[in-house]
Amino acid sequence: MNQSHFISDDPLNAFCKDSTVNLQGVANGVLSDLTFAAKDIFDVAGHITGGGNPDWKATHEPAERTAECIKGLVDAGATMVGKTITDELTRGIFGENAHDGTPVNPRAPGRVPGGSSSGSASAVAGGLVDFALGSDTGGSVRIPASFCGIYGLRPTHGRIPLDGILLQAPSYDTIGWFARDAEVFSRVGSVLLGSEIATEQPLRLVIAEDAFELADQAVADALRPAVNLIASLIGDSATLRIAPSGLKSWVEQQVLASREGWETTRDWIDQVNPRFSFRVSDGYLTARDVSDSQVATAKSVRETIIKRMDSVCPEGTVVCLPTAPSPAPPTGQRLSTLRVLQERMALLTCTAGASGRPQISLPVAEVDGLPVGLSLIGASGSDESLIAFACTVAAKLRP
Amino acid sequence: MNQSHFISDDPLNAFCKDSTVNLQGVANGVLSDLTFAAKDIFDVAGHITGGGNPDWKATHEPAERTAECIKGLVDAGATMVGKTITDELTRGIFGENAHDGTPVNPRAPGRVPGGSSSGSASAVAGGLVDFALGSDTGGSVRIPASFCGIYGLRPTHGRIPLDGILLQAPSYDTIGWFARDAEVFSRVGSVLLGSEIATEQPLRLVIAEDAFELADQAVADALRPAVNLIASLIGDSATLRIAPSGLKSWVEQQVLASREGWETTRDWIDQVNPRFSFRVSDGYLTARDVSDSQVATAKSVRETIIKRMDSVCPEGTVVCLPTAPSPAPPTGQRLSTLRVLQERMALLTCTAGASGRPQISLPVAEVDGLPVGLSLIGASGSDESLIAFACTVAAKLRP
Repeated sequence: MNQSHFISDDPLNAFCKDSTVNLQGVANGVLSDLTFAAKDIFDVAGHITGGGNPDWKATHEPAERTAECIKGLVDAGATMVGKTITDELTRGIFGENAHDGTPVNPRAPGRVPGGSSSGSASAVAGGLVDFALGSDTGGSVRIPASFCGIYGLRPTHGRIPLDGILLQAPSYDTIGWFARDAEVFSRVGSVLLGSEIATEQPLRLVIAEDAFELADQAVADALRPAVNLIASLIGDSATLRIAPSGLKSWVEQQVLASREGWETTRDWIDQVNPRFSFRVSDGYLTARDVSDSQVATAKSVRETIIKRMDSVCPEGTVVCLPTAPSPAPPTGQRLSTLRVLQERMALLTCTAGASGRPQISLPVAEVDGLPVGLSLIGASGSDESLIAFACTVAAKLRP
Repeated sequence: MNQSHFISDDPLNAFCKDSTVNLQGVANGVLSDLTFAAKDIFDVAGHITGGGNPDWKATHEPAERTAECIKGLVDAGATMVGKTITDELTRGIFGENAHDGTPVNPRAPGRVPGGSSSGSASAVAGGLVDFALGSDTGGSVRIPASFCGIYGLRPTHGRIPLDGILLQAPSYDTIGWFARDAEVFSRVGSVLLGSEIATEQPLRLVIAEDAFELADQAVADALRPAVNLIASLIGDSATLRIAPSGLKSWVEQQVLASREGWETTRDWIDQVNPRFSFRVSDGYLTARDVSDSQVATAKSVRETIIKRMDSVCPEGTVVCLPTAPSPAPPTGQRLSTLRVLQERMALLTCTAGASGRPQISLPVAEVDGLPVGLSLIGASGSDESLIAFACTVAAKLRP
């Protein structure tokens, strides 16, 4: 497959225009029938990792080495055909990049693809590649998976080494991937995780009642058949509130990721005075102004989340919840409107991020024709089991 | 003179590249021998007022009318040959525009021109035009005049109507201008102010000892001969501290302009999510977070400044002070370094801004070959007198 095809003909605005990457997969590998793309935060030797910001790109040298996970995929036979658009330095959840434009959401035209792994989700959902790499710090794989109607996994934190990617907040950053098809998703997972995808199924399902209450009623309703199917497949299920103090209180721990994101980037910002969209600067500056007492509270909240999830979701259990509270919103909305939406989304994404647990989003429903994802959070290290179960669910849902 | 000459050959990067404006002055006017440029915040019919920001430009229509002051100058014979680079939406004091680049300071290569009227000062200092229009909210004419070694006036607030310009903080905004030559400066002033330039001289000089103490010692030393000359020309002089509570306490009133700047622009920012350099967003967001109690304190400080200046600088008196605490700093410095410098500069610019008084910067000295300006603040409405006195001083200093 010729990568220049995508660059010159990119109807979804999913790919970086100025970076032509083509890494031919080895012949006869387990993934030799697949093409993929990677968010432009993954290093490819000889290319500048642009990170969705022109000033980042202008102030960095070409990467010397290719990211380990890309090498692994190419060695397994997959062919990389391009780099994809990302929110600036992965700071964003809607996928509207003020410099590069908004990748099209092929499943919901006129609506955002979700971010920050926006171009990867768009390219996969639109069929331009078989799978794509993204990253998830605060929802950046899960949300676009939900908005674009594809599979996406935020793996257990630390499961896939972060070598060779542009970091945001390393103690929250994870590398994830997308696919339209559960079997493809699983085959890629086997390579990225370096292990067989287990066939064992979860033993118990927890339905996170409080998370469903935070979603639009239409979303909760649309997800219900899939939840029922999963409950029947697993057998043992319970409905409970995962956050007794309220998911709103759990969100407070996010200042840790914000502060860490600011610490990671502040020196470069001070030196370069980069051009960011206002929203991105707002995020950094809010993080800069986080107080020590906010940090202390956040650490305590994070401990609470970890303990509670250890109790609610031990090995063998999966927690299901809506990936996002709504389908993808329209593009071009006001910052004040998006801020409210973003705060709602954080209520649903914060649990896996804070606890370092894997969360997979399954494209199992629609609201008025717009995709909405159902998420399963598992025990740390249960990535393979989540993926295997996704295949089981997919097989049952297949018409 | 052909304006396209400047656009295609703009060695100073002073002019807007994508806006070719050429307004031929009327024949036989009092300014028919002069060419000028205007900061790209002045409306010219048929052209978009870009304001130094690509997203502002992209979201605005071409101006329907030409700004009154430009019409007045063209009607007086002056030919407008272009629009000049400005700091984004006039938010900046150094003249480094992350989108358009930094206009060259012809008198201090490798150093900033000062902003936000950066291109106007550069074009005048480099001899590309005879004079140029700028604006001054918090120092945006005075500082570049000092850094580039030219004449610049912040007029009495309200003296030149703000019709047809992109506003920052209307109760602080003023329209000013630059020239290399005091006589040209005076002729332009006569047109812009709509009156004869008075020949009467100030009756009393006040040397603002506390302002001089805040400047680099080398700057204070370099300005001393001009101060002595002015004292001898006026006859009656006194040295005193204009801010008994300290100029640092006077600076607190600046949050009023900041807040007003945020109120002026917030709706557009909310709608467009514009790309700003980080420093600009930082300014807006700091303003957004100004508390009501800070505003109350600032109003009280502003009243204090107005009263004190009424007492220290009645009609007939001029207060002299350094325009800036240092010569132009090098380009490309870190944000944290510039922040410290900016805070020092505000100590010297805040008095005229807060009190609405006119302040003229005279290019009377150098430090290590770099220009430094001496400022005179007069009573409200004494603009003509300040200009006339500038001519007197210039005549005395002429070799």
